[in-house]
Amino acid sequence: MPELMTTPDVIVVGGGIVGLSVAWRTARRGLSVAVVDPDPGGGATHASAGMLAPVSEVTYTEEPVLRLGLASLALWPSFRDELEGDSGVDLDYRTDGTLKIAYDADDMAYLDELAAFERTLGLRVERLTGRECRRLEPMLAPSIRGGMLAEDDAWVNPRLVTRALRTALDRAGAAVVADRAVALTARGVRLASDGVVAAPRVVVAAGPWSPELLPGLPVRPVKGQILRLRGPGGFLTRCVRGLVHGSPAYLVPRGDGEITLGATMEELGFDGRVTAGGVYELLRDAHELVPGLTEMELAETTVGFRPGTPDNLPLIGPFDVPGEADVLAATGHHRNGVLLTPITAEAVAAFLTGEAVPEVVKSCDPGRFPE
Amino acid sequence: MPELMTTPDVIVVGGGIVGLSVAWRTARRGLSVAVVDPDPGGGATHASAGMLAPVSEVTYTEEPVLRLGLASLALWPSFRDELEGDSGVDLDYRTDGTLKIAYDADDMAYLDELAAFERTLGLRVERLTGRECRRLEPMLAPSIRGGMLAEDDAWVNPRLVTRALRTALDRAGAAVVADRAVALTARGVRLASDGVVAAPRVVVAAGPWSPELLPGLPVRPVKGQILRLRGPGGFLTRCVRGLVHGSPAYLVPRGDGEITLGATMEELGFDGRVTAGGVYELLRDAHELVPGLTEMELAETTVGFRPGTPDNLPLIGPFDVPGEADVLAATGHHRNGVLLTPITAEAVAAFLTGEAVPEVVKSCDPGRFPE
Repeated sequence: MPELMTTPDVIVVGGGIVGLSVAWRTARRGLSVAVVDPDPGGGATHASAGMLAPVSEVTYTEEPVLRLGLASLALWPSFRDELEGDSGVDLDYRTDGTLKIAYDADDMAYLDELAAFERTLGLRVERLTGRECRRLEPMLAPSIRGGMLAEDDAWVNPRLVTRALRTALDRAGAAVVADRAVALTARGVRLASDGVVAAPRVVVAAGPWSPELLPGLPVRPVKGQILRLRGPGGFLTRCVRGLVHGSPAYLVPRGDGEITLGATMEELGFDGRVTAGGVYELLRDAHELVPGLTEMELAETTVGFRPGTPDNLPLIGPFDVPGEADVLAATGHHRNGVLLTPITAEAVAAFLTGEAVPEVVKSCDPGRFPE
Repeated sequence: MPELMTTPDVIVVGGGIVGLSVAWRTARRGLSVAVVDPDPGGGATHASAGMLAPVSEVTYTEEPVLRLGLASLALWPSFRDELEGDSGVDLDYRTDGTLKIAYDADDMAYLDELAAFERTLGLRVERLTGRECRRLEPMLAPSIRGGMLAEDDAWVNPRLVTRALRTALDRAGAAVVADRAVALTARGVRLASDGVVAAPRVVVAAGPWSPELLPGLPVRPVKGQILRLRGPGGFLTRCVRGLVHGSPAYLVPRGDGEITLGATMEELGFDGRVTAGGVYELLRDAHELVPGLTEMELAETTVGFRPGTPDNLPLIGPFDVPGEADVLAATGHHRNGVLLTPITAEAVAAFLTGEAVPEVVKSCDPGRFPE
C-alpha cells in the first residue's frame, strides 16, 4: 500500500497528459503535488496522435471549442520550451503544417469553405492542386484532386510528452502513486489498495473514468482505435488528413519514421477490443491516401477512450461535492486533450493558487449542464 | 546447457507439427527419440490454419502434390484417433466441409471445372447457387454468386495438435530439448548453447531453416501473414474459401468461436514483419466474404514461414551428408504441412525402422533436384 511521507497540497487523480501537466504547472508554482494513477500515461494519451490542430473537420462549426483550441495552441511553444527545459526530453514537436486532402468536387468545395473560415481566424492556409500536393508529399495517391496546407498546425509525440512530464515531476519532487483512486473522502482520496492519500485539494483528471469519483459529471468514453506503422521513414513530412468514405482519417509522421494512423470514433462504452472492422477501415483509408504505406510494419494497434462531453467542450473548474474535499475537474477533452493541455494546466493551476483564470476557460465550467 | 541422460536412437531437429509427429510415430514404434527446437510448436505450425483440403486453388493442377495430399487425408482419421487417445487432447477436428465461393461468371466457370476435376478424384462436391450458399452460411455476403461445397475437406486446430503431440511425447518418455541445433556432427547435432546431442540418426524437420543443417537442401521461406478473429462464435460452421481480387482467402472457424483468416504468400525471405498491406488485404477479403466479421475482435496477427520447394512437393527421405550422422529430411511442406503430417510421419518412421515406405512418398526424394 503506497503511503506518502507528507501531505501534499494537491492530489491530481489521473496521470494522462492533462493530469500530469496540471501537476507539473502546479508544482512549478511552489505547491506540493501527488499524482494518483494505476498506469500513468497509459490511457487516451498513450493512444493519441498528438495533433495540435484547432481547426479539424470535426470542430469546424464549434466556435467555443475552436476559441479554446486557438488559445491553447498559442501556449504550446512556451509550454514545450519549459517542459523540454525542465525534463531534457525532446517532445518531437513539429510545425510543418497539415495537408488536408480532397478526392472529388464536393471535397474541393468543402476545402474552399474551410480555407475561407480559417482565414477569418487569422490562420495561414493555402489551397493547392493535386499536383502541388504531390510536390509537397510525393507518396500521396495519384487520385487525389487537391488539398489545403494549414501551415499553423503543429504536432507532438504524446508519449514523449508523458515521459517529459514524469521526468519534470520527478525533478520537482512530486510523487506519483501507482494506484487507482476509487473514491473521494473528506480529506483526500481512497485507493483501490484501501489506503488513503490525504490532501486539502483534489483535481480529478481521470478522463472518462472521472464520474467514478464525481458521480453526475457528464463525461462518457468515446472509443478510438489507432494504429502505428513503422518503416524506413521519409514517407511523409507533414500531417496528412483526408475525408475517406466520409470518415476523417489522419497520418501523423514522427521523427523516428513512425506514422500514427487514426482514428475510429465509436460510442461503445469501455469496449477495449481492437476489431477487424476498425483496423480494416483505418488501413483502407491510409491505403487510399498514401498507397505505399502498405509496405510499412503494422507495429501497434491501440484502443483509447476519449472523455466526451455533451457539447464537446471540456470540464475545467470547481465541481461541488458536499462534505468532501475541495474538488476541481479537468477532463472531458474528447479529441483535443493534447492540444488543450497547456490552457487546461494553466487554468487549473490558477484556480488552485487564486490567480486569474483565462477568460476563454469560463465556457468550460463543469456545472454548466442543468441537472 | 541441456544434456540428455541417455543417447536416443533418433534426434528430430524441429518441433513443428511435422517434427513432433515424426517423433511421436517413431516413439510409438519403440525407438527412443529426442526433439530439438528452441520454441516447439512456434513456427509455421503456430501460424497455420490447419485445413485438410487436398484440392485447393493452388494445388489444383499439381497432380503429385494432390496424390500425396489425398493419401495423407485418408490417414488423418486414424492419426487423430490415436493422437487424441495418446494425449487426451481434443484436436477440434472437424469434417463439415469447405464452401468455395464465386463472385462472378468467371469464378462460376472456374468452380465448374474444379468440381468436375474433384469428382474424377472420387471426392464429393456439390455446386450451389448463391441462395443455397447463404442457406448453409447465413453470414455470407449477399453479393456472392454461387459456390461449391467440398464435403470431404476437414480441418483441425494446429495448436491443439502441437499440444497433443507434446503430451503424447511426454507420456512416451521422449525428450524435448529447448535449444537450437546449429550443425550436424558425425555423431548427432551441435546446439546453439554449444552442447551436443548425440544419436546415430538425425531427422531434419526444421522447415525453412533446414538448410542451416543441410546446406544445398532446396527449401526457402514463403512468408505468410495470418489473422485470428475472436467473437461470440456462430458466424460460420464451415471453412469458407474464396478468390477475392485474385488472391485466395480462407476463413476457418474453431469450436471456441475463433476464426482464422489467411493468408498472404510473400517471397521476402525471413521478413517477420506484420505489414499494413498484408493485414489490410486479409481484412478486406474477409469483409467481402463475410461482412459481419468486422465486428469481431482482431485478436492476433501472426507471421509464419512456409518451407517452399522448387516443385511444391516436400522433401522426405535420406539426404546424404558425407562424414556426418545418418540423416533424413522431412521438410518442404509449403502450404500443406498439417495435411501432409500423417503420411510424412509414417514415411519417416518407416525409413527409420526399415519398414516399407508408402509408394506415393517416393516423389518426395530430397535428392531429386539436379545440382
